[in-house]
Amino acid sequence: MRNFDETTITEAVLERVRNAPNLRQRIISEAIVRHLHDFVREVEPSQKEWAEAIAFLTRVGQKCTDTRQEFILLSDTLGVSMLVDAINHRLPGNATQTTVLGPFHVADAPEFALGEDISGGMASEPLLVEGRVSGIDAKPIIGAVVEFWHADAEGFYDVQSETGLASLAGRGIVRTDAKGEFWFRTVVPAAYPIPDDGPVGDMLKAQARHPYRPAHVHFMISAPNCETLVTHLFLADSEYLDSDVVFGVKDALICELETQSVGPTARGNRVAKDMAALRYDFVLADAGR
Amino acid sequence: MRNFDETTITEAVLERVRNAPNLRQRIISEAIVRHLHDFVREVEPSQKEWAEAIAFLTRVGQKCTDTRQEFILLSDTLGVSMLVDAINHRLPGNATQTTVLGPFHVADAPEFALGEDISGGMASEPLLVEGRVSGIDAKPIIGAVVEFWHADAEGFYDVQSETGLASLAGRGIVRTDAKGEFWFRTVVPAAYPIPDDGPVGDMLKAQARHPYRPAHVHFMISAPNCETLVTHLFLADSEYLDSDVVFGVKDALICELETQSVGPTARGNRVAKDMAALRYDFVLADAGR
Repeated sequence: MRNFDETTITEAVLERVRNAPNLRQRIISEAIVRHLHDFVREVEPSQKEWAEAIAFLTRVGQKCTDTRQEFILLSDTLGVSMLVDAINHRLPGNATQTTVLGPFHVADAPEFALGEDISGGMASEPLLVEGRVSGIDAKPIIGAVVEFWHADAEGFYDVQSETGLASLAGRGIVRTDAKGEFWFRTVVPAAYPIPDDGPVGDMLKAQARHPYRPAHVHFMISAPNCETLVTHLFLADSEYLDSDVVFGVKDALICELETQSVGPTARGNRVAKDMAALRYDFVLADAGR
Repeated sequence: MRNFDETTITEAVLERVRNAPNLRQRIISEAIVRHLHDFVREVEPSQKEWAEAIAFLTRVGQKCTDTRQEFILLSDTLGVSMLVDAINHRLPGNATQTTVLGPFHVADAPEFALGEDISGGMASEPLLVEGRVSGIDAKPIIGAVVEFWHADAEGFYDVQSETGLASLAGRGIVRTDAKGEFWFRTVVPAAYPIPDDGPVGDMLKAQARHPYRPAHVHFMISAPNCETLVTHLFLADSEYLDSDVVFGVKDALICELETQSVGPTARGNRVAKDMAALRYDFVLADAGR
């Protein structure tokens, strides 16, 4: 095989990648080649544009560190992450809707007892979070693992601090009680720009797009025989609900902050001062639908 | 804009990137989004496969250094580089055919006088290279800048050595004389595997593909008012001419090595011992066709 021109090269490459012994590898390889070549044939990049694309992707990879995932940002800002999320979560109607994982999830977040303050000293207005986890049959799920992470009043995550991972804050894990309920105390997160000092920020500027996400708390909730739920709760009074840079907002995930007075809550917990309250009941789909 | 599902998100992202003030940026952004989303919709990657793709691209970026360009290898091995090359070189019939730049070009290669030994101590059989550069009107081009680089008998380029760029070898620049001719002495390059100790090598293994390129010498030839020519000369007795991992071989670029005896050459140059000879006459297309 030789002497390929712009009309024959795609079939030549397809013929080569069809050797992949793993069927899934073969399907994905063939699709990559077809779509990538179709893209090139459509836009007819100059050699200079091709070199700029190589340099851009290289910068995206080199911007990645243990606490910065620029390729996830690229996937998020091109709507790919939400598309993959949608394809993977064709859920039964009453299950809680999903949204993107984002780049700020950290493995091995600390576990807390119910009711603890997980803010780690982040400065902002105090916030009570109360939730309930059930299956689609409405039965409470006991011992569900509820992981959460959020930004501070300036819109920064703990891992974005100069000191790095030494001081986790605004993230943790709790487990639901015998009623399938959980609660913790923290502070109200702010809207924020995704990290835009790298190549993805350059792309957004070139596309005349702002880099902001509306204020939200991330949740990842798992339990035996249930599909792990990755979602956010968005704060209803936040800016950017209609222009989230990663296309992640769903109406069903937007929560009005309530006001909780000092003393007992309706769910039988207790706070030592007045604070805002975020309440949501999560419904997990069955695994292996 | 919110509540996107797998059928509505593509239009939402397209609407956003249409803000790009630069027309070309807008065209490319829209095409990226459409083709990327089409690809995702076709293969329906699992979340795990999406995460693997993110990790793969990150590794490709992080493998890049001053002397290793893994994204070019990825583009080359998926046939994208040759497709871009073909699109950008719809040349008049008698112009020399083009092929990929590859990842081993180095800026600021050393300049040599005609006839010098440019091998830099690479061990292999001695080789005489004689060439002529003309325009499509067949008139010789005087003072054309002829840059060349090639691997050694083991298939390694200078920049792949442990000592790195400290010792350039097997590459350089000469200028054509009053007859449009050039010559230099070096050694015969071998076929070689592209660097396959990184993620692109992993991809080739998963696709059950070998990583080899047939033996060749790279040329980049430029002259005023001419389109710069990026090409190779392939050695006719090399393995892998029919399965070049980057799809770069064209019959018109394959050369039989000749035998040159000690003494004068047909073109009026002179060698001090018997050696192999590679001869080719290059034809540059006009610039700005």
